[in-house]
Amino acid sequence: MSGERATAELLRERRHRWEDPLRTAAAAADRDGLAFLRALVAGELPPPPIAATLGFTLRYVEAGRAVFELEPAEYHYNPIGSVHGGVYATLLDSATGCALHSLLPAGATYTSLDLSVKFLRAVRADTGTLTCEGTVTHLGGRTALAEARLTGPDGRLYAHATSTLMIFRPEATT
Amino acid sequence: MSGERATAELLRERRHRWEDPLRTAAAAADRDGLAFLRALVAGELPPPPIAATLGFTLRYVEAGRAVFELEPAEYHYNPIGSVHGGVYATLLDSATGCALHSLLPAGATYTSLDLSVKFLRAVRADTGTLTCEGTVTHLGGRTALAEARLTGPDGRLYAHATSTLMIFRPEATT
Amino acid sequence: MSGERATAELLRERRHRWEDPLRTAAAAADRDGLAFLRALVAGELPPPPIAATLGFTLRYVEAGRAVFELEPAEYHYNPIGSVHGGVYATLLDSATGCALHSLLPAGATYTSLDLSVKFLRAVRADTGTLTCEGTVTHLGGRTALAEARLTGPDGRLYAHATSTLMIFRPEATT
Amino acid sequence: MSGERATAELLRERRHRWEDPLRTAAAAADRDGLAFLRALVAGELPPPPIAATLGFTLRYVEAGRAVFELEPAEYHYNPIGSVHGGVYATLLDSATGCALHSLLPAGATYTSLDLSVKFLRAVRADTGTLTCEGTVTHLGGRTALAEARLTGPDGRLYAHATSTLMIFRPEATT
Repeated sequence: MSGERATAELLRERRHRWEDPLRTAAAAADRDGLAFLRALVAGELPPPPIAATLGFTLRYVEAGRAVFELEPAEYHYNPIGSVHGGVYATLLDSATGCALHSLLPAGATYTSLDLSVKFLRAVRADTGTLTCEGTVTHLGGRTALAEARLTGPDGRLYAHATSTLMIFRPEATT
Repeated sequence: MSGERATAELLRERRHRWEDPLRTAAAAADRDGLAFLRALVAGELPPPPIAATLGFTLRYVEAGRAVFELEPAEYHYNPIGSVHGGVYATLLDSATGCALHSLLPAGATYTSLDLSVKFLRAVRADTGTLTCEGTVTHLGGRTALAEARLTGPDGRLYAHATSTLMIFRPEATT
Repeated sequence: MSGERATAELLRERRHRWEDPLRTAAAAADRDGLAFLRALVAGELPPPPIAATLGFTLRYVEAGRAVFELEPAEYHYNPIGSVHGGVYATLLDSATGCALHSLLPAGATYTSLDLSVKFLRAVRADTGTLTCEGTVTHLGGRTALAEARLTGPDGRLYAHATSTLMIFRPEATT
Repeated sequence: MSGERATAELLRERRHRWEDPLRTAAAAADRDGLAFLRALVAGELPPPPIAATLGFTLRYVEAGRAVFELEPAEYHYNPIGSVHGGVYATLLDSATGCALHSLLPAGATYTSLDLSVKFLRAVRADTGTLTCEGTVTHLGGRTALAEARLTGPDGRLYAHATSTLMIFRPEATT
C-alpha cells in the first residue's frame, strides 16, 4: 500500500457553515440580553460562527443562567490525545458571558476581563455530551463575577471557571 | 430577492482536515518533548486536530519556549462581533503547554491544572496575524508554571495567561 | 501643639501573642485532618501565629468545609483607606486549605498551588464581622479544587476565591 | 514544671504600631501616584497599617514598578509549619497595586479586581529577606494588568501573581 493511500485513509474532513456574525451582533443592540439569547436558543437568530466551528450549542437561558452543550469529537483533540483545554475554555467563557448578558438591558454591552479555568478531568471523544452551565455570582454597576461548571453525562465535574466581566451601560457610554 | 437567496448569500462554509490524533500522540511517547515538537514544526508529524479546526500553527520551538500563529477570521467570532475569548485561550493554553513539553524527557507527560487568561484587547478579522509565545517561568519536579503572551502584528499585547501544569515523570509512573 | 505630641496622639499600638507553630504542625502529623482542625476549633491546640497576627479565628469545621471569622480593623488597612486585599486573601487561602485538610487522612499533607481571588466590595473597619467559608469542589488523588466565599454581616459577598491544592498522600511519599 | 510555666516559655509576643491610615489616604488625593509613593518610601508619610502588622516595607518605586521587602518570621506561620500563603498574597497585591498607582495622575484612584497567585516554594523563617517586585504589563483607560514576582535572597522565584485593576480617572468621576 502506498504512502499516499495510507494518508488518504487516515485523513478526516469536516465542514462547518455560519452566517454573517455582524448581523447577529446588530440584533443584540435592539433588545435586552435575555430576549437576544432566547432568540438564539429558538433559532430565530443564527448562532455565532465559533459555535459552528467548534460544534457547541446554547441550549437554555434564563435570567443569570446559560447552559451550553458540546459533543466532544476527534476534531477537538490536542497533540497529546485528548480534547484541547481551549475547547473547555471556549464553553466556559461562553457560559459566563451569556449568563451575564442575560441580565443586561438593551444597549448595554460587556467584555470578559479574565477567565480563570481549572481543569479537573480529561475529555475524550467517547466521554459523551458535555454540559456547561454559567451563573452570575455578583452583579455590580461596572463589573460582574460569573462562574461556570463543565459536567459530563455522568454528572461529574470536568472543569470550573470564574470570570470577571466589565459592563458598559448605556448611560455611561453616551 | 427571496429569503432563500438572501440566506445563501450570507452563508459561509469552511472545510478543515486532520489526521488520526492518536498517531501523533503515540509519536510523543518515543522522543523527548523538544524533538517531538520540532517534528511538528517541520511537518514530519501531522498537527493536532484542534490546530486545523481553529486554524493555528506551531511556528517555532526551543527549550522552554513555543510560538504559535493564528490568522483571525470570521469563523472565530462570538455573538457580539469579535473573536471569541476561547480562541485566545486555545492559543495561550497551547503555548504554555508546549513550552513545558519542550523541557520534558521522553516518557514524561503533563497536564494543565489551570489557565488564567487576561483579555486586554478585542481581536477582529482585520487585526492581522496573532503571535502567541509561551515560556516556562518555573520548572519543578512535579509541577511547572508557564506564561504566554498573545500579541498582534503591531506588537501590542492582546492577552496574557499563566498556567500551572502537573508533570508525570517516567520514574513516578512505573 | 508640638509635632511630637501630634504624632503621639495619632499613634496606635497593638500586641499579639502566639505559641511555637512547630508544636501545632507536629500535632497535625498524628491525626487526620478533621480531628486536627477540630482540636484547633476547640482550643486544644494553639492557633497558628498568622491567625493571631491578623486577628482571625477558625470557628467551625466539618468534612469538606471550614469557616473562619475576622473582625476588620484599622490595623488591616492599606494606603488607600480600606482593608488590604492581602487580608481577604489570607482568609480565603485559610478557608480553602482547611476545607481540603478536613478530608485528608493522618499522614497526608497538602500545599496550595494557586489562589485566584476576586475582590467584589471594599471592607472597612465598620463593615462588621466577616465570615469566610471554604468548601471542596473536587477531590482527586493528587490534586483538589476548593473555593471560598467571604461574606459580611449582611450576607453580601465581599470576595470569592478558587484554589488548586496538591495532595501528598502517605503511600506516595514513602 | 507547671503547665503555666510551660506555656509561658512557649509564648511569643510582638507589638506593632501604626498611624491613622486616613491621614495617609488623604495625602494620596493631593499628588500623583509616583509622588505619593515616593513620600512613603522616604518616610515622609507613615506606612499603611498593614505594613506594620505584617512587617513589610516599600523600598523602591519608579513609574510602573514598585519593590517591597519582608523578613519572614515565625509570626507569619500557618498551622502546617511555613509562612502562610496570605503573606505572599499581601506582598504580591501590594506590589501590583503600587506599580499601577505609580502611573496614575493626582485624583485618579484604583481598585484590584482580582489577584491570581501561583505558589512555587515554601518560605520559612530562615529563608531570608523576600523581595517582591510589581510591574505594569498593560495600562488601559479603565483597566490595567500588573504582575509581581516574589523572590528570595538567592534570586529564586517563590511566587508569581497577576492582577487586573480598575482605574477611576478624575474625568470619569466628576
